[in-house]
Amino acid sequence: MEYKIYINGKIFNEDEAKISVLDRGVICGDSIYEVFRSYDGRRIFLLDEHLERLKTSALYLRFNLPNTLEYIKDELERCVQEAGFKKTYIRLIITRGIGDINLDFTDAKRPSMIIIMKEFHPFPDEYYRNGIDLKIVSIRRNPIDSFNPGAKSGNYLNSALAYNEAKTSGFHDALLLNHQNFCTESSTSNFFFVQGDTLYTPSLDMGILSGITRNFIIRLAHDTKIPVQEGAFTRQDLSNADECFISSTLKEIMPVKSIDHEKEFLEIPGIVTRKLQDTFRNTVKKYYEGR
Amino acid sequence: MEYKIYINGKIFNEDEAKISVLDRGVICGDSIYEVFRSYDGRRIFLLDEHLERLKTSALYLRFNLPNTLEYIKDELERCVQEAGFKKTYIRLIITRGIGDINLDFTDAKRPSMIIIMKEFHPFPDEYYRNGIDLKIVSIRRNPIDSFNPGAKSGNYLNSALAYNEAKTSGFHDALLLNHQNFCTESSTSNFFFVQGDTLYTPSLDMGILSGITRNFIIRLAHDTKIPVQEGAFTRQDLSNADECFISSTLKEIMPVKSIDHEKEFLEIPGIVTRKLQDTFRNTVKKYYEGR
Repeated sequence: MEYKIYINGKIFNEDEAKISVLDRGVICGDSIYEVFRSYDGRRIFLLDEHLERLKTSALYLRFNLPNTLEYIKDELERCVQEAGFKKTYIRLIITRGIGDINLDFTDAKRPSMIIIMKEFHPFPDEYYRNGIDLKIVSIRRNPIDSFNPGAKSGNYLNSALAYNEAKTSGFHDALLLNHQNFCTESSTSNFFFVQGDTLYTPSLDMGILSGITRNFIIRLAHDTKIPVQEGAFTRQDLSNADECFISSTLKEIMPVKSIDHEKEFLEIPGIVTRKLQDTFRNTVKKYYEGR
Repeated sequence: MEYKIYINGKIFNEDEAKISVLDRGVICGDSIYEVFRSYDGRRIFLLDEHLERLKTSALYLRFNLPNTLEYIKDELERCVQEAGFKKTYIRLIITRGIGDINLDFTDAKRPSMIIIMKEFHPFPDEYYRNGIDLKIVSIRRNPIDSFNPGAKSGNYLNSALAYNEAKTSGFHDALLLNHQNFCTESSTSNFFFVQGDTLYTPSLDMGILSGITRNFIIRLAHDTKIPVQEGAFTRQDLSNADECFISSTLKEIMPVKSIDHEKEFLEIPGIVTRKLQDTFRNTVKKYYEGR
């Protein structure tokens, strides 16, 4: 895997892209991040929406962004062009920077801005053709009043534990419940299911990331007259579902085949899922043609 | 602050001590750590106990330690001697290492071992003379089934949020409750209180770190015939307490003056606290004389 990595204004090859071990990002995972995607190796999809969320994460963790959003946007676009990949995976990380080794947010003065880029490789085609298997794991999503999953940060082990629990049990990914036994999201994706003609997805107060792709899908559903209901759904609510999928910037809309090897979905992708996938694809196409 | 920093076998000055931004430690705080202290700049206090806990953290996060505990121990001792500080602060960090950017623990093959050392500077004397003010913060300790606070990892923002909430409200540090409203610990310290002649401290199942200094204090209490009770204690249980302190490797036993500016402790340090502090000091002295 070949990476191009920008650190504070300069682009490095992957061997040279290093930061101080005294950076709070290393010491306590004190960083915020976004993952973007460029479908044509130049323009970044839903860039403004991602940057708005970066601001939310920064606010939650009382981060001083190193620069204006305008500057960050310009640097991101410049980097993607310079990297020159056909389709680009882009990860922007802003760490709190170097300070004394303690927990005081104000002791680290200068954040570091990192942009990791590589050629985007899609997930295996069969995941989209046959769907994936989700496991409802024993690990629960971080509660909002411990560490709000709505902030996209460098503290990602809650998700990692969930993912690896699912993986070592032979599943593709995890579905995490919160402490009230309601569905939240997958390890790095939002969660949707369909029943009848209606699209259901956990509401933000369940303790989830306000996914850019999640919000985009909700918008597409509105546009195509698919009723959407956000709310609190238990494991039992899934037993009557007709279709199910997870969503993320990298996965777009990925169908789920089964949950806990109990609930099985018959048609992959289901009618509503396919309709949303088609609309998604067309909207991306228009987005890039409209340039 | 001058640091000496060991990375995978070599000691660097602080400007040169860098790791790849592709290291999982940077990407998602995927690391485990221990903080040690040498009182004489040579020998590390309670080293074996710390390394045992490192093993526990490694197990929880399915870490392959890069080397045997014996090797890690030798390297730590060698480093502390080479660094040559009079009294040494030592932070050992083991990151998962470089892998593809995903959550799969098995995709990162070679962990990195980092040892950060600096001259140990004690906390201000007045903290020990007058005690510190704790705030019961709104942030709750991570629940055991989301991310076990018993593992010492690079995901430390739950503590950082708690600390900064307390700090910006004019307190020295935080006291975190769990979701059952029981006391757990401070942001980077364990929590004790005294009532009558008995020492009370939250039990491990409250969701706390099994502090090396905590366990050492419990042992000292047994040795000096102070009854110890570990258990579940609410905010109300504190209202009848006579003394209170927090403990950590760096703080040893630090008296608490007030909790939420409501509960005030009259004598700082109280009788039992002082007795434990004296025994602590004498035991350290003997430990280093006995060498």
